[in-house]
Amino acid sequence: MTNYHLSPSRFREEGKKIIDWIADYYEHIEKYPVLSQVEPGSIQAALPIAPPQKGESFDSMLNDLNEIILPGITHWQSPNFFAYFPSNASFPSILGDLVSSGLGVQGMIWATSPAATELETRMLDWLVEMMDMPEKFKSTSTGGGVIQDTASTSALTALIAARERATKFESNKSGVRQKLVAYISTQTHSSLEKAVKIAGIGSENLRLIEVDELFAMKPELLERQIQMDRNDGFLPFFVCATIGTTSSNAMDPVREIGEICRRENCWLHVDAAMAGTAMLCPEFRYLKDGVELADSYTFNPHKWMFTNFDCDVFWVANRKELIHTFSILPEYLRNKASETGEVFDYRDWHIQLGRRFRSLKLWFVIRHYGVEGLQFHVRKHVQIAQNFAQWVKHDADFELVLNPPLNLVCFRHKSNNDFNMRLMHAVHNSGKAFFTHTKLNNQVVLRLCVAQTHTEEDHVEKTWKLIQQTAQNLKNQDRPEKLS
Amino acid sequence: MTNYHLSPSRFREEGKKIIDWIADYYEHIEKYPVLSQVEPGSIQAALPIAPPQKGESFDSMLNDLNEIILPGITHWQSPNFFAYFPSNASFPSILGDLVSSGLGVQGMIWATSPAATELETRMLDWLVEMMDMPEKFKSTSTGGGVIQDTASTSALTALIAARERATKFESNKSGVRQKLVAYISTQTHSSLEKAVKIAGIGSENLRLIEVDELFAMKPELLERQIQMDRNDGFLPFFVCATIGTTSSNAMDPVREIGEICRRENCWLHVDAAMAGTAMLCPEFRYLKDGVELADSYTFNPHKWMFTNFDCDVFWVANRKELIHTFSILPEYLRNKASETGEVFDYRDWHIQLGRRFRSLKLWFVIRHYGVEGLQFHVRKHVQIAQNFAQWVKHDADFELVLNPPLNLVCFRHKSNNDFNMRLMHAVHNSGKAFFTHTKLNNQVVLRLCVAQTHTEEDHVEKTWKLIQQTAQNLKNQDRPEKLS
Repeated sequence: MTNYHLSPSRFREEGKKIIDWIADYYEHIEKYPVLSQVEPGSIQAALPIAPPQKGESFDSMLNDLNEIILPGITHWQSPNFFAYFPSNASFPSILGDLVSSGLGVQGMIWATSPAATELETRMLDWLVEMMDMPEKFKSTSTGGGVIQDTASTSALTALIAARERATKFESNKSGVRQKLVAYISTQTHSSLEKAVKIAGIGSENLRLIEVDELFAMKPELLERQIQMDRNDGFLPFFVCATIGTTSSNAMDPVREIGEICRRENCWLHVDAAMAGTAMLCPEFRYLKDGVELADSYTFNPHKWMFTNFDCDVFWVANRKELIHTFSILPEYLRNKASETGEVFDYRDWHIQLGRRFRSLKLWFVIRHYGVEGLQFHVRKHVQIAQNFAQWVKHDADFELVLNPPLNLVCFRHKSNNDFNMRLMHAVHNSGKAFFTHTKLNNQVVLRLCVAQTHTEEDHVEKTWKLIQQTAQNLKNQDRPEKLS
Repeated sequence: MTNYHLSPSRFREEGKKIIDWIADYYEHIEKYPVLSQVEPGSIQAALPIAPPQKGESFDSMLNDLNEIILPGITHWQSPNFFAYFPSNASFPSILGDLVSSGLGVQGMIWATSPAATELETRMLDWLVEMMDMPEKFKSTSTGGGVIQDTASTSALTALIAARERATKFESNKSGVRQKLVAYISTQTHSSLEKAVKIAGIGSENLRLIEVDELFAMKPELLERQIQMDRNDGFLPFFVCATIGTTSSNAMDPVREIGEICRRENCWLHVDAAMAGTAMLCPEFRYLKDGVELADSYTFNPHKWMFTNFDCDVFWVANRKELIHTFSILPEYLRNKASETGEVFDYRDWHIQLGRRFRSLKLWFVIRHYGVEGLQFHVRKHVQIAQNFAQWVKHDADFELVLNPPLNLVCFRHKSNNDFNMRLMHAVHNSGKAFFTHTKLNNQVVLRLCVAQTHTEEDHVEKTWKLIQQTAQNLKNQDRPEKLS
């Protein structure tokens, strides 16, 4: 009688087919339109309305993967993907993640898989060294690191810990009674607004500090706002500085902001979600000057460090504050190792209880590439982006909006906003490349981010030619008929 | 010159080795001690202190996986794992997850991979049908489902949406100013306490309602507490009912609680994290009687539905309330499909922005097993647990603490708490089985949860004999010397 399971021998067979399917996918990824071209609802229309009563074959599933799912994929792993911030992956990461799925451990506490906790701790200590981060972020010092799902969650986690510290650990118990106020710049990621809402602080108690001409927070305005708020009876408690904003990769002055935070007794959280990976290279570390003043710091190996989503690194300077904030101990989780305090129980370092063994993919990536290999790719991406910026600069129809500090280039066609949007959509519709836009000073600005694992200079060069050609075509179309 | 990447052909080779490694692991999983026997710090001690400058071979990584990591694994996928709530996986799920890692898409909004959004929507609609859940939980009605990481996050998400609704959508803007009060039972999962803390409501505004002799919430006490709170000027706004508590699988009376919530204008969240999977079988659906009164409902395919962690299903009756609560729209995420409102952008359904393509593994599981195969395994687990309960009942040294409603058996040796803890640790130290404990009415109670994918009756039978034998050995040891 069947037990319905896939047997280990069938798993070997089907698993190897899927490994080949993935390798084939990467070998042919450039033939797919980068931005999916399907209409809303078309994928759903191709899927059965009713769930299957009886099991189906793996062949039928693989077939549907090709026929139904692939057309609805926007190819984040295409070397012609330059949109948003990237979410790059690599073969070593995919295999590390496969081991994690296979082992299927749930590392909520040390005892539920000591290796999951201890490998994570060591990987995050390694990264402190690899990026020359402050010693206090290490587990061997007062702080430590934990893997979160996203930088949004890390921001929320930091905000809650800061809220607790500022209220002398009263807010968890009594709710938010104080007139707490938090500070970001006008360019800070939207997740901070979401976090102050979730945390019960309220978006009207979030101050958006104006930025300079490079879109970096003006520290003197931060300081003035804090004073005004204190005079109005508010309790300033939290500041988020960004190393590489999402819109334009702007670099907030971490040291100056950090010094204000020290004086004003505010928690400093640093969000380096994408640009953080650049800290692998000594020549880019000036961008984190002052980070020793931070209470918490986050960056995403799942953006630019070849580690597939999700993998967000979150470091704190003082783990006791974090654990005090998030610790809960029901009887059914009590165990000897936890009670001695000898071990980390990571469920006390974040919002969720359950957790996947995510450090495996990080371990595979770091060991496969070595620090040297990771540096090589980061440098290459930055170099390609700098070259692209030069090409833009030398085209009379386009302008470079900012000198790119790293690998994100903000540029625009010199005509109006509408033209830039049409230009972008026309490139998208070609299927050959995908980049996105933002607004800076009310101008539509195109963003090209060079960070996909397999992007080489020729991909960017072809994309640039496509942009130029598409702009030319659009201009020709726009020409009044009398001139034609 | 090297580009440091693993080539597609090397990926095929190493990937197939890892597929075989996983198959080997499952074929030999019973030879490992279920609960890892390592000492705190021993895994770290075996890992290099410094990160590698140069890349290392896959062979060395696989070797370390065997030598360093495996001894530190608590084997959640062992058929002798009966601890906590399970986190079961299956081969089809592992392969669906592998495709997700390979595609590496980030489905934060519809446009960033329409298939990721639309497959997720369809899978969660399928599950409504498969479990005979209320029509309003479907995307084609007023509600809809979304995959979250854990039931903890779903509880927090529900609580925030409820907070917003109760404050007429003011709390996101102005913070928590009202005297909000939420209700759970003394047996509700600790994540609810964590959620009220995070949400700025405060644990002192969380009421723990007493339970009956089966550890289910007493609805009359809930109603009385709500009245008392109203009289004291509080605003009751949220109740969590549980289908299958973590301690003892107690079943709260959802209908009676739901009717109170309707009258009192409170949001009803139903947490069916583990037991929810039983709703696949018509004969267990009486346990969800009244669920049409719920505003939100969560259960975890990653617990008992053969889908590897993380995969938590979260349904709401009214998606507009949810989206209104969590929606944020920065310029760099604006796009045509979203602005027409024709599509779901799941980043507006939860805390995180980024999201993995998790519905693939659910699709693989449902299609491979079919409804029929899933029902077969759920029924088998329940039957084995019921048999185990009978064996306990017929052993004069042991007692069954509760008649198990499903697959979690609460039992104890008739001697004292200390003896039960020693008994449990002795079984753990044997490496042959792993179950955990809780406290009910101040008594240590042992919990045996039958839900691992490959658990068959003989695994539980052997474990029971081991427990009996171990208890006998301990009793013999304890006998005063004069009697020996």
